[in-house]
Amino acid sequence: MTTIQDIAHLANVSSATVSRVINKNGYVSKSTKEKVKQAIQELDYVPNSQAVSLKKGSTKTLGIISTDFFDTASVLLRSFTMEAQKEGYNVTIFITNQNKQKELDALEMLKSKQLDGIFLLYRTNEWEIIEKYEKYGPIVTLNRVDSDIIPSVYMDQYSGYLLGLEHLYNTGCRKIINLYSNESGLNTQIRIKTFEEFAQKYHLPSHDPSLFINLAGTKDGAQAARWFHQQTEKPDAFMCASDSVAAGFVAEAMHLGYIAGEDYSIIGFDNIFLSEMLDITTIHYPVDLQAENAFRLIYQRLVNKEQQVQSLDFKLIQRGSTKRTIY
Amino acid sequence: MTTIQDIAHLANVSSATVSRVINKNGYVSKSTKEKVKQAIQELDYVPNSQAVSLKKGSTKTLGIISTDFFDTASVLLRSFTMEAQKEGYNVTIFITNQNKQKELDALEMLKSKQLDGIFLLYRTNEWEIIEKYEKYGPIVTLNRVDSDIIPSVYMDQYSGYLLGLEHLYNTGCRKIINLYSNESGLNTQIRIKTFEEFAQKYHLPSHDPSLFINLAGTKDGAQAARWFHQQTEKPDAFMCASDSVAAGFVAEAMHLGYIAGEDYSIIGFDNIFLSEMLDITTIHYPVDLQAENAFRLIYQRLVNKEQQVQSLDFKLIQRGSTKRTIY
Repeated sequence: MTTIQDIAHLANVSSATVSRVINKNGYVSKSTKEKVKQAIQELDYVPNSQAVSLKKGSTKTLGIISTDFFDTASVLLRSFTMEAQKEGYNVTIFITNQNKQKELDALEMLKSKQLDGIFLLYRTNEWEIIEKYEKYGPIVTLNRVDSDIIPSVYMDQYSGYLLGLEHLYNTGCRKIINLYSNESGLNTQIRIKTFEEFAQKYHLPSHDPSLFINLAGTKDGAQAARWFHQQTEKPDAFMCASDSVAAGFVAEAMHLGYIAGEDYSIIGFDNIFLSEMLDITTIHYPVDLQAENAFRLIYQRLVNKEQQVQSLDFKLIQRGSTKRTIY
Repeated sequence: MTTIQDIAHLANVSSATVSRVINKNGYVSKSTKEKVKQAIQELDYVPNSQAVSLKKGSTKTLGIISTDFFDTASVLLRSFTMEAQKEGYNVTIFITNQNKQKELDALEMLKSKQLDGIFLLYRTNEWEIIEKYEKYGPIVTLNRVDSDIIPSVYMDQYSGYLLGLEHLYNTGCRKIINLYSNESGLNTQIRIKTFEEFAQKYHLPSHDPSLFINLAGTKDGAQAARWFHQQTEKPDAFMCASDSVAAGFVAEAMHLGYIAGEDYSIIGFDNIFLSEMLDITTIHYPVDLQAENAFRLIYQRLVNKEQQVQSLDFKLIQRGSTKRTIY
């Protein structure tokens, strides 16, 4: 690595003179300036940008933390990065694998000014520990958090889930089974409540939420399809917490001889490309806009100027998996 | 932001004394040391880590550059990050969207020491431009490159593609159609050559490569399925350049009334979870190990110590989409 001393040596001037030329302060004669510039070019000297950002107290780098980067998390990563890049920020990713220390390491980088802000997708530590880092820079999270300190780009799952249930009811489905995701999540709690209110309103049979809970991916969906196969009195429809679960169900049911939208109805959630590919009705919500909003909330704090936050709405995407109407 | 001066003021000592305590050099009496440490704790002072890394001349940050982060690129990102994190490196991502300047910005960060090394997945600039940055730090790329300067973790597609073709032949398929990916890629050129040699060896009918070329995703696969539907003399099998294309074909063909492994045979490539879910035979290659090797090649240069690079092999994963044998 070329140093100022190397340049001074080659140009046959003092280091102080080189420094004056680089920083453009103090008098240097035109001919000396030329000599120094030539030496800089010859030695391919680059001013150390860490030293530059040190002066500014900003690295123009944001962190994005998640337990992993599959499915929607990868869509969030992409949108967040694209939006950040527009304003000249780079994004460093942290995969915690649910390791608390790894998450703390990333949060510590906010404290030591290596990161300007953090988008925390899926946390591992308790909120009260995370909140302590907020004073060092903006932290924004994805899901609802009962904290006045950490803002989130949360969307209330109630209206989204209800859209799906009402659509099943309108196509004549009466016996509906819910495939819920992780038991401790606020989203699951809201969905259970939504279904219970819905079932009560239309006098439909309810079911124990624990029948299908903690379903995470395609394999869990496939297992539910095998359960469906074994039932003598089959339900009319399945409402899933994610497209991955719905896709796993549809693919496995197909192998067992059941066609979605003919032998049963099913609705996914997320509108990832899996559901489009398998022609599964789903609930779309703007993951990309959520990530853009997360950046804007962070950016707002960094530049101390209000940013426009986009409004977020759920939408039912009707596809083949709910094409039949039961009379 | 707390400064050394703030601490000196609170502890009622000189800045030089504070500096001696922080950097642990020079004599400071035990009682003074205590006072300074208390002030540091009280003011929640954090030594600026940029200043620390400035001294070391390393940021412990690697860049990963790609045109986008879908499908295999997201698997590569994940494995590379996990491996880098193990050695204490963080990974910053750059989505170029095929914008040459965006790629150059990232490469410039190698020059200005903001990045220690780069894993370049899918490039946008010419190699001769990229090569110029190699002297500033290690750059490793994914696919084969005719350059002595930039190493890659390339796997020769010839043997992988041939595995699939031979399997189709062994299950009695004679009329085989190839669904190729991007025309200008070296991988596509190798696959075309592989098929032509294979067809010649077994005296099988060949076809114009341009029949299906530049296929990128599920939608392109679906279009090929519609072509299949229209043919009066249908081919026996399809050999695809990716699982996405194969999955799009299988899903669309299913809607048109054709079952994979019964009405036609099909093989994907990559072994992403889509192919597992849809029960599609595919060619597995260790994307995760490729990414780990990429990190090891970079790390080797950074620590100047040879790292073990893992050997990479293709494997045929036989599934339902090639279950029939034609006699």
